[in-house]
Amino acid sequence: MSVNKLPVPPSHIPVPVASARLGIDWTHLHPHPSLHMRTSPQTAFLFDLDGTLVDSVYQHVLAWQEALESEGIVLSVWRIHRRIGMSGGLMMNVLLRESGSAIDDARAERMRKAHAAAYNRRSAQIRPLPGARELVAYLTEAQIPWAIATSGRMETAGAVLESLGVNLARVPVVTRDQVKYAKPDPDLFLAAADRLGVAIGTATVVGDAVWDMLASRRARALGIGLLSGGYSQDELERAGAYRVFEDPADLLKHIDEVGGRR
Amino acid sequence: MSVNKLPVPPSHIPVPVASARLGIDWTHLHPHPSLHMRTSPQTAFLFDLDGTLVDSVYQHVLAWQEALESEGIVLSVWRIHRRIGMSGGLMMNVLLRESGSAIDDARAERMRKAHAAAYNRRSAQIRPLPGARELVAYLTEAQIPWAIATSGRMETAGAVLESLGVNLARVPVVTRDQVKYAKPDPDLFLAAADRLGVAIGTATVVGDAVWDMLASRRARALGIGLLSGGYSQDELERAGAYRVFEDPADLLKHIDEVGGRR
Repeated sequence: MSVNKLPVPPSHIPVPVASARLGIDWTHLHPHPSLHMRTSPQTAFLFDLDGTLVDSVYQHVLAWQEALESEGIVLSVWRIHRRIGMSGGLMMNVLLRESGSAIDDARAERMRKAHAAAYNRRSAQIRPLPGARELVAYLTEAQIPWAIATSGRMETAGAVLESLGVNLARVPVVTRDQVKYAKPDPDLFLAAADRLGVAIGTATVVGDAVWDMLASRRARALGIGLLSGGYSQDELERAGAYRVFEDPADLLKHIDEVGGRR
Repeated sequence: MSVNKLPVPPSHIPVPVASARLGIDWTHLHPHPSLHMRTSPQTAFLFDLDGTLVDSVYQHVLAWQEALESEGIVLSVWRIHRRIGMSGGLMMNVLLRESGSAIDDARAERMRKAHAAAYNRRSAQIRPLPGARELVAYLTEAQIPWAIATSGRMETAGAVLESLGVNLARVPVVTRDQVKYAKPDPDLFLAAADRLGVAIGTATVVGDAVWDMLASRRARALGIGLLSGGYSQDELERAGAYRVFEDPADLLKHIDEVGGRR
């Protein structure tokens, strides 16, 4: 229970004569609990997709390795893993710079296409993460607003959204196609909050990557980290996660602790 | 410089009469620095293979996922990743227990074979990690003893050892086939030190997994962690790494700091 702080005269100061003459009763300024009970607004959950709701990070990583190699760029797989989840364009810039290769638009576009093809070839193996379907079903049933905001494009996100049983007519899904800058810029989460009609300052971002946590801070949302994308608890906390769970099933177990009470 | 502790009589105690009579000169027991300069023995480097010298962890992870699924066991990929590098047998026990599935020898043997086949199908994409060939060439040239100790079996390790240019006639390679218990038991590293003829207490283990660090502590060796297998610095340090580098190239840059001076 939060109590408003109203100015009440300290008891050792006599009530001013003028007030007494006017019959002013200071006691009404002592807040009565029932009149000042404050309710914080219901939080909305803004979910990342890959590594957060579906188990697709490692396939994305190896698909990017294949796409980079098709352009003659050899990079260690762990370095690609640690960049997954940021904007694909930004990621290519970073990786190309790291490998000392030249960046040009035609090359980036060829790699984007090669990645999508290599990923879709691997996508038969991809499953929703444990508890993902149950978590979003719980939120829907509890009438807690939620949306999806992914740095991926519809061409790779479409199939996994289906596997989650997401009703695209009812649940806002913001993809990289719909904003100018993807994560770690805050735009995807800002757009998702807009689509839900909620203030970003009351929203909670759920993601598996450092880039989700950085974007959530830039958006002034809270961030919850999940280990299911392969980052460590320490990496997520250092990037600003205020709480870390294993996967959607673990988050659902603790949903009452993070503003998801029914 | 370490100085031997010899029993010298405290100065307030008079030299015993008998000693004085016999002409004993206690001062020779004060060590002269040049006579007591201590040299620590040269460290030997005991390398893990997958994720430490070759970039094969993510392919192993997805190959295990495929092998588990062939037995109807669905597990999140990050959970498999965090178990890679431990004994395959132990890993199957842990994962089967986690998934609530029954463990039996025939099933474990089928999965071992399915993993080897799925991994070998992916192995064309596998490369030595940056600096791996240069690091082992440097140690060989500097006559610093080194060996390889892997929880993998020769059937999957053979091809990557070739890619490293390792001369199997000269470099000891201990695989899972040659010890009773693989990592996190210390046996692989103890066997590698034996093969080099060095004391394990003077050896340094280099690995990418928490299991390498735990095995190095159980063996009483030092552990150096590498990020190239996808674990975080924090995870490796908590498991006992006394130093963490990015990959073999980064370790080679700092080799003088960890006992690898020429």
